[in-house]
Amino acid sequence: MESLKRFIRMAKGEIKAELVLKNAEVFHVFTGEFIKNDVAIADGRVAGIGSYEGEREIDLAGKYLTPGFIDSHIHIESSMLSPLEFARAVVPLGTTTVVADPHEIANVTGLAGLHYLLAATADLPLNAYFMLPSCVPATDLENSGAKLLAADLAELIDEPRVLGLGEMMNYPGVLLGDSAVLAKLKLAGQKKIDGHAPGLTGKELMAYAAAGIESDHECLTAEQAREKLRTGMYLMIREGSAAKNLAALLPVINAYTAQFCCFAADDRHPADLLESGHINNMVKIAVEAGIALPTALQMATINAARYFKLADIGAIAPRCKADILVFDNLDDWQPCMVFKDGVLVAKDKKPLFERSAAIPPAIKHTMHLGEIDRQKLMIKANGSDRAHVIGLVPQQIVTRHLQMPVPVQDGIVRTDTAMDLLKLAVFERHQATGNIGVGLVQGFGLKKGAIASTIAHDSHNLIAIGTNDGDIATAARELARIEGGIAIVAEGQVLGSLALPIAGLMSEESAASVETKLGNLKKLAYELGVHEAYDPFLTLAFLSLPVIPELKLTDRGLVDVTAFAIIPVMAGQKI
Amino acid sequence: MESLKRFIRMAKGEIKAELVLKNAEVFHVFTGEFIKNDVAIADGRVAGIGSYEGEREIDLAGKYLTPGFIDSHIHIESSMLSPLEFARAVVPLGTTTVVADPHEIANVTGLAGLHYLLAATADLPLNAYFMLPSCVPATDLENSGAKLLAADLAELIDEPRVLGLGEMMNYPGVLLGDSAVLAKLKLAGQKKIDGHAPGLTGKELMAYAAAGIESDHECLTAEQAREKLRTGMYLMIREGSAAKNLAALLPVINAYTAQFCCFAADDRHPADLLESGHINNMVKIAVEAGIALPTALQMATINAARYFKLADIGAIAPRCKADILVFDNLDDWQPCMVFKDGVLVAKDKKPLFERSAAIPPAIKHTMHLGEIDRQKLMIKANGSDRAHVIGLVPQQIVTRHLQMPVPVQDGIVRTDTAMDLLKLAVFERHQATGNIGVGLVQGFGLKKGAIASTIAHDSHNLIAIGTNDGDIATAARELARIEGGIAIVAEGQVLGSLALPIAGLMSEESAASVETKLGNLKKLAYELGVHEAYDPFLTLAFLSLPVIPELKLTDRGLVDVTAFAIIPVMAGQKI
Repeated sequence: MESLKRFIRMAKGEIKAELVLKNAEVFHVFTGEFIKNDVAIADGRVAGIGSYEGEREIDLAGKYLTPGFIDSHIHIESSMLSPLEFARAVVPLGTTTVVADPHEIANVTGLAGLHYLLAATADLPLNAYFMLPSCVPATDLENSGAKLLAADLAELIDEPRVLGLGEMMNYPGVLLGDSAVLAKLKLAGQKKIDGHAPGLTGKELMAYAAAGIESDHECLTAEQAREKLRTGMYLMIREGSAAKNLAALLPVINAYTAQFCCFAADDRHPADLLESGHINNMVKIAVEAGIALPTALQMATINAARYFKLADIGAIAPRCKADILVFDNLDDWQPCMVFKDGVLVAKDKKPLFERSAAIPPAIKHTMHLGEIDRQKLMIKANGSDRAHVIGLVPQQIVTRHLQMPVPVQDGIVRTDTAMDLLKLAVFERHQATGNIGVGLVQGFGLKKGAIASTIAHDSHNLIAIGTNDGDIATAARELARIEGGIAIVAEGQVLGSLALPIAGLMSEESAASVETKLGNLKKLAYELGVHEAYDPFLTLAFLSLPVIPELKLTDRGLVDVTAFAIIPVMAGQKI
Repeated sequence: MESLKRFIRMAKGEIKAELVLKNAEVFHVFTGEFIKNDVAIADGRVAGIGSYEGEREIDLAGKYLTPGFIDSHIHIESSMLSPLEFARAVVPLGTTTVVADPHEIANVTGLAGLHYLLAATADLPLNAYFMLPSCVPATDLENSGAKLLAADLAELIDEPRVLGLGEMMNYPGVLLGDSAVLAKLKLAGQKKIDGHAPGLTGKELMAYAAAGIESDHECLTAEQAREKLRTGMYLMIREGSAAKNLAALLPVINAYTAQFCCFAADDRHPADLLESGHINNMVKIAVEAGIALPTALQMATINAARYFKLADIGAIAPRCKADILVFDNLDDWQPCMVFKDGVLVAKDKKPLFERSAAIPPAIKHTMHLGEIDRQKLMIKANGSDRAHVIGLVPQQIVTRHLQMPVPVQDGIVRTDTAMDLLKLAVFERHQATGNIGVGLVQGFGLKKGAIASTIAHDSHNLIAIGTNDGDIATAARELARIEGGIAIVAEGQVLGSLALPIAGLMSEESAASVETKLGNLKKLAYELGVHEAYDPFLTLAFLSLPVIPELKLTDRGLVDVTAFAIIPVMAGQKI
């Protein structure tokens, strides 16, 4: 009470504010205006905008202030960075709030991973909110490190930083009225339920919305976006590393729709963060494409805050958190300063904070790979010479379900670099069951060796692609040794690796260091023949995601996503 | 769970919906489009929009559907109608949701009045939400029937239909950091805090917003509105019976501000409800003034829903309540049908529901008037011949603080119809203390007799205006006899009265009946000389409201609102 009283006095200008940012053009998110003024700050919040004096004053004449940006849907794990290093990467770009769906780490470590992320983000100069992962595992067509039912999630739903239920990817489960799925929807109560429904349309989309799903970030076209908006689903416009939808969706934005639109990265890799930015890059693209600047800024700030019912972020306004970006100009959208809770936490793209957080052992030792049975890596022809093959599509995470003749020798299907046909294997790596799913991939380009990774959506088993079983097995063993990550092997030799010891998903090193190592690995992959049209590790990571059409591979086998069933590799056979 | 499963199946069109509204042009509030379609309804909610079959179907070809309208701030008591009769008046006009501030009844009956309104609205075909009255009494410059501190309000803050703290009129208390006031703000927690800050500007406005106030409905000019919007306060554009601000505020609405604007009536009297409508009238005025129709409809629906964090109203969309208006055209904004929770509840301006609710005795017997001491009605000149006089302003609830010479005879100030100088008295009527405040009013026009009312903001004591003390006392006694209401007296005779037995504020009769009686009383008042520029009872009702400038009267005496102090009637004296 006393502190509120003091705060009110500062707002009235009766006593000096703690900090005053002076003379900048302040963006007023509720009216779309820039107005030259001072911003008075105390207790980490904005006390007032006007002519103020402060204990400390920073003259920002000629600069522009906007509220900190909000990413409405991101998987922190996709950055391959620890929460600390993630914050050190995105805060200097102007992101002061993320709503994270810890779906990846939950698939590996269950609730322990969620507790870890909550703890690891608690003291960062970044508002880290969480949506409880709704689909762990994503399907029963694979074995994950954990299974989270509604009763498990109930443990965390009342956490203040938990804003609801994360993207409900299991839309078939919703549409079928699956009890376990509906129980999760019910758990959300008054909190939000995010959606994930690529291509869902017509009455199925109606049913999905009728079940209570309130957003979608999977629209590829303006028409899809309009249809989802009509159902009342909030449009989270995505510009990630894997999927880039912003340009395609901009035509949807107008005076009536804009308030229901916000920005999301979904997945954002270190290279993209370092090179093009984060939400600030989306503002830049939107404005350059002709979206009115105030509208772009509203989408990057207040619109997301309102969706999530967060009354104290998204604006430079009295009582809101003093999460403020300072820009030299309104062109490049790279803030020269970032204030979080009124503290300068980044300057000229450099973070001004550092903190080493202890990582619990359960999070750091997650590799439980069984014996590698070479027999299980073989694909038996069983008298057929035609196979179901995963056909890659450049720039997309969807695949084509091909059926084609494949080389068979001694009753065993062979890879063939001439026809760009490779072996794909997914090793269960959570319970050391020794499960291995195998399949064939066409279009990747690898001419030699194998590439393996423990980033393999959504269960994050160990995925490996290669020209031969020996290198595939070697790469898998190397990942077991380094506690998860990415490895490249050729002719029995490990050519390079990146350790990702946090759940096999994240490094403890900086974005720049991770990016350097990853860049070197990528170079190596291209040298081994991978087509430049693909990000080798990203492509690999999505080949095991059985909720994205058309054909995928899990540790349990080849998944026909359209039929939502496991099928044999060889055509004309039954499982 | 089973019902949700069935609902999903209906949305998918696998089984027939309970009711389908067919072939109408459906307004999609999230995109601003009208699209011809069917609306499938089950369990009182919209299941889907598309091509549907239903157990029951209503063909609405050629009609237009919009979501039910929302009044974001109203005092039901101002209608002088019981909750049932209020609903029977507004639902046929298209209002399916009101956010009510039961400030008036709370001033008379305290928490009992709030419990009564919650109970009396529970089963109505109207979503009745409540904001807890924050200022009971409004000031300590008057005696009210109840005092509600934060600890009292705590009893109700967690009620699902309580959305937060009602208009914080005590802005001086906020700005001074008054502990009792701040405790109420704190009580709201994550719920909303509505504001009421006429004319507040600059740093005082900043401080008011900094304290957590999130809306305002007291803007008279576009510039005031813009300034408040900039602070993040939601703009509730008011078009009430007493104050009409819509036309003046329309210039504020643009692509950036609209999402933070919604509609409110604040006070709406029976005649206005019957003659011009409610929120539907605001839509009409806005559209005729050039506001884009989709924007006007968003302000009347979804924008208010979002402010109050209500996810299931404000839209015709899957899972939202089937609160749907049917219009023959988009011109007159009088719905030809109103569906509430999927049930037809009004047709052609007629309500289709009726229900007699028992009213608790504590609510129906609230007149506790003390002995009327005629000495207390006299104004002693005390040697002065100049007085502080309340100067009326046509069409406004603000008054002027006049100082003028007044007729004095035998040391007693006299009224004078020639100079249009009348006696005003406020009788405490809650605890029978016998308190009477007296003052003088200039400009009302009454030539004969007295008019008295128990609608006297905010404490709702008994207010009377007259040419002589005898008629004033007679009118007061008549109101005690009829348990509150309005009475007109001349030459010792009661010429007419309207009983308002519910807390002395509301009738149990229909809007039409109340309006007829009120119309007759009004006619009588004009016959007695009241200037046609004034609604006699409304003008009277606000003369006791000491939070509106400049000079008012309570049972404790004359209030200089600017100084927020009680002053003597005679100039040059001290209290």
